[in-house]
Amino acid sequence: MKKIKVIQFGLGPIGIESLKLAADHAWLEVTGGVDIDPAKVGQTLAGLSGMPALGGARVYPSLDALFAAVGGPDLVLHTAGSSAAASFAQMRPALERGISVASTCEELIFPALKTPDLAREFDTLCRRTGARIAATGVNPGFVMEVLPICLTGVSREVRSIYVERVVNASTRRQPLQAKIGSGQDPADFRAKFAAGKAGHAGFQQSVALLAQAMGWRIDEIRESCEPVVATSRVTTQFFDVAPGQSLGIHQKCAGLSGGETKIVFDLQMYLDAPLPHDAIVIKGRPELNLVLNGGVAGDDATVAALINIVPRLLAAAPGVRLMTELPLPAWKNPRSAA
Amino acid sequence: MKKIKVIQFGLGPIGIESLKLAADHAWLEVTGGVDIDPAKVGQTLAGLSGMPALGGARVYPSLDALFAAVGGPDLVLHTAGSSAAASFAQMRPALERGISVASTCEELIFPALKTPDLAREFDTLCRRTGARIAATGVNPGFVMEVLPICLTGVSREVRSIYVERVVNASTRRQPLQAKIGSGQDPADFRAKFAAGKAGHAGFQQSVALLAQAMGWRIDEIRESCEPVVATSRVTTQFFDVAPGQSLGIHQKCAGLSGGETKIVFDLQMYLDAPLPHDAIVIKGRPELNLVLNGGVAGDDATVAALINIVPRLLAAAPGVRLMTELPLPAWKNPRSAA
Repeated sequence: MKKIKVIQFGLGPIGIESLKLAADHAWLEVTGGVDIDPAKVGQTLAGLSGMPALGGARVYPSLDALFAAVGGPDLVLHTAGSSAAASFAQMRPALERGISVASTCEELIFPALKTPDLAREFDTLCRRTGARIAATGVNPGFVMEVLPICLTGVSREVRSIYVERVVNASTRRQPLQAKIGSGQDPADFRAKFAAGKAGHAGFQQSVALLAQAMGWRIDEIRESCEPVVATSRVTTQFFDVAPGQSLGIHQKCAGLSGGETKIVFDLQMYLDAPLPHDAIVIKGRPELNLVLNGGVAGDDATVAALINIVPRLLAAAPGVRLMTELPLPAWKNPRSAA
Repeated sequence: MKKIKVIQFGLGPIGIESLKLAADHAWLEVTGGVDIDPAKVGQTLAGLSGMPALGGARVYPSLDALFAAVGGPDLVLHTAGSSAAASFAQMRPALERGISVASTCEELIFPALKTPDLAREFDTLCRRTGARIAATGVNPGFVMEVLPICLTGVSREVRSIYVERVVNASTRRQPLQAKIGSGQDPADFRAKFAAGKAGHAGFQQSVALLAQAMGWRIDEIRESCEPVVATSRVTTQFFDVAPGQSLGIHQKCAGLSGGETKIVFDLQMYLDAPLPHDAIVIKGRPELNLVLNGGVAGDDATVAALINIVPRLLAAAPGVRLMTELPLPAWKNPRSAA
């Protein structure tokens, strides 16, 4: 059976999850990994992930070192940060060889918002070499963009879109619990958010992607984030939070057009959130009111989105692609052919 | 502003709704209509639909007559029946000229199921002339295929898919109320369903499309339909149903693979159904449990799906296309450019 050769760039918790899932797919062959951590370089992916199916594939300190050792793959699975600029720079050696990149980088959901010059430059590079870039995930990537956009496929008229997401962060990985400020002093968290060093990344990019799909010109994006403060002690595998400390975030983002609110995102992500769910309300004709009971479980689904996008991305036209430019998302059966 | 020229083939209730919606879209220009009803031929679309924006465009008895009078459009909006074979035959004059067709024909959701030879023949024809065919709608077309498939984009594993749809048929058009057997003797309705002359069309095609997207080989499709019988008198705009007569249908369809049930559709469509909704349960990892409160309103949304697919279909590769082969569905803003 023909397989798609991939490598894993970034071997943090999400990268390891991506590796484990890739190892379970008959249509994928993982030929190596890249990480800057000297403690990981040289190790086998099988050892790092506990998946013997990954055989002798190893970790290299850079894409160039990997390419020199095992040659170029068909695609890079990229899970190494939220910044579009940093991610573009990391991807460059692959793109210059015409190797495509599927990423979980939040800002790459709509890179033209904050880094329009880079988005154009890398789009041109991709078109020249035949490579493709796309970013995916659950949020950003699915709950607040792909799913509501897909729903509007049956809309005659869309006046506004509201998406609400409540995540029980107790079930999530340590870096996420840290990022939402678990156990921190609420005032410290507010200062960190104001400095752009805390909170959920990618909200404004999600607004921009949704607005572009709806043909709306957004002239103002408003974002806010408040800590959710513990009223009693909350303990997780990673944190012990006293009353008065932060449990997580309540982050909102609104996109306005001519003073009219067209898009509202409301995200509550905190330890022990009692009723996790995702909900979408589309005002228009018809009215659409969707609830995902329990929500879409985070990290599990993020790496699934990353692996599932591979065949669709490789079939797309070269360039920097948005989720709205690829065919309908779908599970890619691990036992199917490439 | 550049416009996409379309014509409306079929001027029943759905065709008229399609016309009304098309007339409201700045990026569409409706240049004519086709219907076999001699009472409609020669009339203006503006008169038939009550939409003055449609100007002097008229109804012709055939595509050839329309092409001779006003030239070929970019695309045909086709709302003229459930049969794939009949629809293919109706489309042929357009396809031979390289004109694409967007259709609500239920069997065309997956034409290879019942008419594989025709599907191949028309795919070859389309590739030769540059035309595209795709069918869309709400059910089939969205609730039981596009939406669950889109959800599985975040799935690591999918074991089975269940879709439930409850429609309050009192809110729907007369032909639909008739098709589900409103006011009929339940025994008469059972006989009609057994003869393939009643019930919801396209269920088996929906199973086939979903199964193909999931990479499942379905070796058995089981379908059943029972009348929902009135216990007290129910009156709609079109029917007066006495106790003991039919109010509508409870239709089920299951797709099995190696004795294992992979797909189950459960559709209740009857007069005065008290709690209309659509629901999807995806067993796998993660578990996904979606509810569309109130459901997706029928005819309104069907013509929206038809109009919204136009730009995506015209950008697709020539051939007989499935919904899974087109970019993510999305509302196409009526005020946007073509």
